[in-house]
Amino acid sequence: MQRIFIGMTKDNRFPLLSKIDQPSDLRQLSEKELPQVCSELREFIIESLSQNPGHFASSLCSIEFTVALHYVFDTPNDKIVWDVGHQAYGHKILTGRRERFHTNRKFGGIKPFPSPDESQYDAFVAGHASNSISAALGLAVAAEIKKSKEHIVAVIGDGSMSGGLAYEGLNNVSTTPNNLLIILNDNNMSIDKSVGGMSQLLISMHSSKLYNKIRHKLARGLTELGILNRRRANSLTRFNNGLKAMLYRQQNIFDGMCTRYFGPIDGHDVLELVRVFRLVKDMKGPKMVHIHTTKGKGYKPAEKNATVWHQPGLFDPESGERILSDNGIPRFQDVFGETLLELARKNDKIVGITPAMPTGCSMNILSKEMPQRVFDVGIAEGHAVTFSAGLAKGDTMPFCNIYSSFMQRGYDNLIHDAALQRVNMVLCLDRAGIVGEDGPTHHGAFDLAYLRPIPNITIASPYDEHELRRLMYTAQLPDKGTFVIRYPRGKGALSDWRCPLEEIEVGTGRILREGKDIAFITIGPIGKMMESVIDKAAEKGVSVAHYDIRFLKPLDTNLLHSIGEKFNKIVTIEDGVIAGGMGSAVTEFMQQNGYKPQIVCIGIPDRFVEHGTTQELYRSCGMDNDSVLEKILKLQDKGL
Amino acid sequence: MQRIFIGMTKDNRFPLLSKIDQPSDLRQLSEKELPQVCSELREFIIESLSQNPGHFASSLCSIEFTVALHYVFDTPNDKIVWDVGHQAYGHKILTGRRERFHTNRKFGGIKPFPSPDESQYDAFVAGHASNSISAALGLAVAAEIKKSKEHIVAVIGDGSMSGGLAYEGLNNVSTTPNNLLIILNDNNMSIDKSVGGMSQLLISMHSSKLYNKIRHKLARGLTELGILNRRRANSLTRFNNGLKAMLYRQQNIFDGMCTRYFGPIDGHDVLELVRVFRLVKDMKGPKMVHIHTTKGKGYKPAEKNATVWHQPGLFDPESGERILSDNGIPRFQDVFGETLLELARKNDKIVGITPAMPTGCSMNILSKEMPQRVFDVGIAEGHAVTFSAGLAKGDTMPFCNIYSSFMQRGYDNLIHDAALQRVNMVLCLDRAGIVGEDGPTHHGAFDLAYLRPIPNITIASPYDEHELRRLMYTAQLPDKGTFVIRYPRGKGALSDWRCPLEEIEVGTGRILREGKDIAFITIGPIGKMMESVIDKAAEKGVSVAHYDIRFLKPLDTNLLHSIGEKFNKIVTIEDGVIAGGMGSAVTEFMQQNGYKPQIVCIGIPDRFVEHGTTQELYRSCGMDNDSVLEKILKLQDKGL
Repeated sequence: MQRIFIGMTKDNRFPLLSKIDQPSDLRQLSEKELPQVCSELREFIIESLSQNPGHFASSLCSIEFTVALHYVFDTPNDKIVWDVGHQAYGHKILTGRRERFHTNRKFGGIKPFPSPDESQYDAFVAGHASNSISAALGLAVAAEIKKSKEHIVAVIGDGSMSGGLAYEGLNNVSTTPNNLLIILNDNNMSIDKSVGGMSQLLISMHSSKLYNKIRHKLARGLTELGILNRRRANSLTRFNNGLKAMLYRQQNIFDGMCTRYFGPIDGHDVLELVRVFRLVKDMKGPKMVHIHTTKGKGYKPAEKNATVWHQPGLFDPESGERILSDNGIPRFQDVFGETLLELARKNDKIVGITPAMPTGCSMNILSKEMPQRVFDVGIAEGHAVTFSAGLAKGDTMPFCNIYSSFMQRGYDNLIHDAALQRVNMVLCLDRAGIVGEDGPTHHGAFDLAYLRPIPNITIASPYDEHELRRLMYTAQLPDKGTFVIRYPRGKGALSDWRCPLEEIEVGTGRILREGKDIAFITIGPIGKMMESVIDKAAEKGVSVAHYDIRFLKPLDTNLLHSIGEKFNKIVTIEDGVIAGGMGSAVTEFMQQNGYKPQIVCIGIPDRFVEHGTTQELYRSCGMDNDSVLEKILKLQDKGL
Repeated sequence: MQRIFIGMTKDNRFPLLSKIDQPSDLRQLSEKELPQVCSELREFIIESLSQNPGHFASSLCSIEFTVALHYVFDTPNDKIVWDVGHQAYGHKILTGRRERFHTNRKFGGIKPFPSPDESQYDAFVAGHASNSISAALGLAVAAEIKKSKEHIVAVIGDGSMSGGLAYEGLNNVSTTPNNLLIILNDNNMSIDKSVGGMSQLLISMHSSKLYNKIRHKLARGLTELGILNRRRANSLTRFNNGLKAMLYRQQNIFDGMCTRYFGPIDGHDVLELVRVFRLVKDMKGPKMVHIHTTKGKGYKPAEKNATVWHQPGLFDPESGERILSDNGIPRFQDVFGETLLELARKNDKIVGITPAMPTGCSMNILSKEMPQRVFDVGIAEGHAVTFSAGLAKGDTMPFCNIYSSFMQRGYDNLIHDAALQRVNMVLCLDRAGIVGEDGPTHHGAFDLAYLRPIPNITIASPYDEHELRRLMYTAQLPDKGTFVIRYPRGKGALSDWRCPLEEIEVGTGRILREGKDIAFITIGPIGKMMESVIDKAAEKGVSVAHYDIRFLKPLDTNLLHSIGEKFNKIVTIEDGVIAGGMGSAVTEFMQQNGYKPQIVCIGIPDRFVEHGTTQELYRSCGMDNDSVLEKILKLQDKGL
C-alpha cells in the first residue's frame, strides 16, 4: 500500500515542519514544540524514502540531535560539519531543501551528501568517513585566527571513529587554541556493526548505567537548583570528569587526548540534547559530547536490522515490506562473495579482509561459513591494505576488498607495503567506475589511472562474471604477486555465472570479434555493454573488431602490436578517467612503438561526475551506447 | 681529526661486537656482557656514521632495546617489524651486515631502511612511518592461523604514533586472537619534536615518577622473591594495571584499546629490558611495552640537538663538529621557507601546515617569526591536507608542505576534501623526484602521474628558484583554487635567488631556447640540468628547442599546438615515472589533436628505483645528461 508523496507543502500532517523553511524558523518555536518537530521530521523521512530510496537508518537515528543543533546554534553563521553525511537528511530538510527533497539523489536533484555547492548550511563536503574532525578543526582554527565568534560543530559517527583520519584530527585538537565541539553519534554501527578496540571502549562507556544515572540526576538537580549556569559550567565539567573517573574506572581516551568529554547522553531526548548543547556551546576549548542513538530509530523494521535498512531501496512505509526487483541476474558482489567461499574451501591459505563492508562487498558469505577467516577491520582502508600485506608475508593468501573510491585512502599502503615487497595478495576494488546515485565522492573514477604508475602490480578488470571468477582463481595461485581486480557496483549480464574456475594467463587480452575498420579496445564490463554498439556499427557498415584488453598491467604487448600493425583507427573505452588510464596506456604504447593510428579515448572526462543513475551519468560523460556509436561512426567518416 | 674506519674485522676495540655475525652469536653471551655489547655497538655506529652519513640520533637511542630484543627473541624465526627504520642500524649490524655497514645507503650497498629483499632478519619493509603495527598484526594473525609459535614484535616510535595508520592498527589489535608485542620507543621526538594529544599523553606517562618507582621496585622485589614466574605474570599484569590506575589517574589509551600496557621503562637499561622482554614474551594476547629513550643517547652533541643530529652528514666523532660543504647556493627548501615568510608578512591570511617536517621543509623559518601561524600536525599527512582544506574554507590561505612520497598518504584527502570543493590552498610537494640515498620508499616518483587525473587542481613545477618564488606568489593570489607545486630535495642552481615576486599566468609554459630539429619539453629543475645537454647537441649539429612546460595541469595547449605544428620530433623529460606523467600527457595531447610526431618520453621507468646518489640513480634510469644526449642524437639520426 503505497501513498503518493511528492513534496508536502499542503500536507497538514506536518503542521510544524511545513513552516520551517530555514533553521531560523525552527528557532522561533518554543522548546516544548521540539518533540513534535522531531516526530514530523521522522514521519517525513520515512514516507519520502519509501518512494525515493536513500540512506534510511542513519537519518532516522540523527533526528533529535539535528533539531537540537539547529535550535541551539546560529546556523549558517555557526557551522556544522557532517561526517559521511548518511545522517544528514534531517539537516537537509530543515535547511531549505524540504520541498525539493523528493529529488534527493536523482540526476539534477538534491545531492546525496552535504555539499557547500548546494547550500550555505553545508559547511564542508561529506562522503568519505572520518574527515569531519580535521575539516572542522580547520574551520575552528580559522575562526580563532580571524577572531570570529562563530561556533564550529563536527558530527561524527562511532563507525567513522575507526578511521585513522579521525584519530589524526583528534590528536591535533589539543595542539592549538580552538573551541571545536565534536558530537560523537554512537549507534554502535557503521553500515555493518562497528568493530575494533575503540568500538569496545564506546560500548563499555554507554553501558555503564550507574554512571549515567547519577550523572543525569546530578546535572538536572543542579540546573533545577539554579546552581548550574554558564559560569559554573567549567567547574561542573571538572566535577563531572572526576565523578566519572570514580564511578567508572574505564579509561577515557578522549580526556586522555586533551578533549573535554561529556556523556554518554540519550540521543533521542531532544530536550536533554538542547540543554547539553546550551551548556557546552560557549565553553572554551575543544569538547566532545557523546550521544547514544539507535540506528533506524522510530521505525521498527529498521531498528531490528539496521544493516539492511542502511539503504533499503523502495519499501511500503506501513508494512515495512521492501519492494525488491529481481531479474535473476546476480550482482558482481554476489559472484565475488560466492567465488571467494568456493576458493577458500579449496585453498586453506585464503583469508578475507574488509574495511567495514562485509555486507556491501558480500564477504559475509565467507564469514558465515568460516568466520575465523574473515577480518572486518572497520573503516580503515590504509590498515586493511598493510594488514593484508602482513598476512601475505606470513604466508596466507589475503583477498582484501575495498571500494574503489575508498582505496584512495590506501594508496600509499599499496605502493609501500604491498607492491614494493611484491607480496602475494589480491586486492579487489568493488564499486569501480561510475556508481550512480552516491555521486562524486563515491565514483570509482580514478583507480586505473592512479594504479597504472605503480611498479610490480597486476591490474585486471573482468569483462563479465565468468571472467571475474577466472581472475579471482588466477590471482590466488602461487606467486602471482600483488593482483588488483576492479569491477563495478551492481548487476552483470549472466544468469549462469557459475563457470569452471580456470587460470587466465596474466597479461593477456583477447579478441572477441573480428573486424576490419576500427579496433575497439575495452576493459571491464563496460566492454560487454558495447556489444550492441558494435552490432549497430555493423548495421551502418562499419566493421569493428572488439578487443578485451583485460589487463591494464602488464599490457598484452603482442595483442597491441597486432592491433597497431592492422589498424589505423582505434577506439578505447574504460569506466574511469581518460587522463592516465587505459586509453592513455594504449596511446603511449602506439607512440613508443612507432604506430600512428588515430585513437579516440572514451572515458570519464576531466571533471567530477555528478549523481544520478549510471545511464544518466554515462550519457553526461559521452560514454553511453549512443554516444559511443556516434564517435565510432564519426571516426570512420573522418577516415574515409 | 678523522680516523680511517672501513669495516672493523681486525679492530680490537670491538672485542664482543666483532664476534657477532648473527643474533645467535649474541645469544651465546652472558647477560652481564650485554652492556659492553651496547657500548661497542654505540661506538661503532658513531664512528661509522661520522664517515658515511646516515640516520644518527635515532639509531643511538635504540641500541639497548635492539640488543635486548635479539637476545631474548629467537630471530629470524621470531620477527621484528621496524617502523620507519631510522632506528634499525643496530639491528642491521647485529644481523650479518656489520662488515658491509660502511656501504650503508651507498649505491649498490646496504639499503637505507630494513628490507626483506636484503635480509631474512628484516621481516617487513620500512620507510614510511606508522605501518609497523598493521604489518606486524598481519604476521601475528598469520602465525595464529598457521598455529606457528613464532613471536612477532613491532617497534614503533612515539612520533609514528601520531599517524592514523598506527591507530587503525592498534584499534584492530584487539579484534582477533594474536600475541603481538608492541615496543613503543618513546623519545618525545619524530625528526622534530613530537606533537599532539598523544604526545602530551605519553609525556605525562613517563613523567609520573612515583608510579614508575613503585612499579619497578615491586616487579624487582617479586622476581627476587621467586614469586614472579611465567604463570603468575598475568596476575601481576592485572595488579600492575590496578596499581597504575590508583597511583596514576591519567587515563591510559592503550589499556582502553584492549592492549595490555607495561611501562614506562628505562630504554637504556639493557638488563632491565631483557628482564621485561622475558616477562612478556610468552604472555597471551596483545601487549605494549612503553620504553623511554633519549634520541642521540651516548653522544652529547646529538643529545643536545637531536633534530640536527637526526641525519647530520659527515662529522668529526671526537669533537662533534659537523663537516658542512657550502657552495653558497641555497636549497629549494631554503627558498621555500624564506619566500613563505616574505609572503606571510604581506598576506595576513597565509598559514603554514607541516606533517612533522618543520625543519626538513624549512617552515621553521616562518614559525620562528610567526609561531601562531604555523601548524605542525605530526606525522599525519591525511589530516594535514583535510585540515588545510578546512582552514581554506575558513578563509585563510594555507600553504601545506608535504614530502612527495608521503603525499601518497593524503591522496584521498586531496581529491575529496580539497579538489572537489576547489578550495584555495597551496600544496607544496617537497622531495619530488629522485631523492637519493633514502631509496625506493622515499623517491617522489609517482606524484605527477597520480595528480594528473584529479580534476579542478593546478599542478606546477618550477624550473629554478626564481620560478619557485613566482609560483608561490601566484598560488596565494585570490581564487587560484587548489594549487600544487612540486620541487626536489636539495640545491638549485642560483645564488641570487631573491627575485621580485611576480605572477605567472596559470597554465602557461615558455620557450627557453629556439631550435628547429627537436622540441625538448621539460618540467621542473631537471629541465635546468638539461641546458648543457642542449649545448652539446648543438655541438653535434642537432638544433634543440627547449620548452619549459611549467604546468602539468592545466596544460598550455597554445604552446603544445605550436610545438605540434612545428616539430615532428619531441623529447620529454620529467623527474618522475613515465607511465601517466607529463610525457604521457603530451603524447595524449598530440594524439587527440591529430599531430603525429615521434615522441621519446624520458623519466623513471616502470620499476622501484634503488638508493644511491641522485646522479647514480639518474644514470640507472637513463635520465642523466649523457643518456639524454644519446637519446636526442639517436632520435635525430633515426629521423634523418
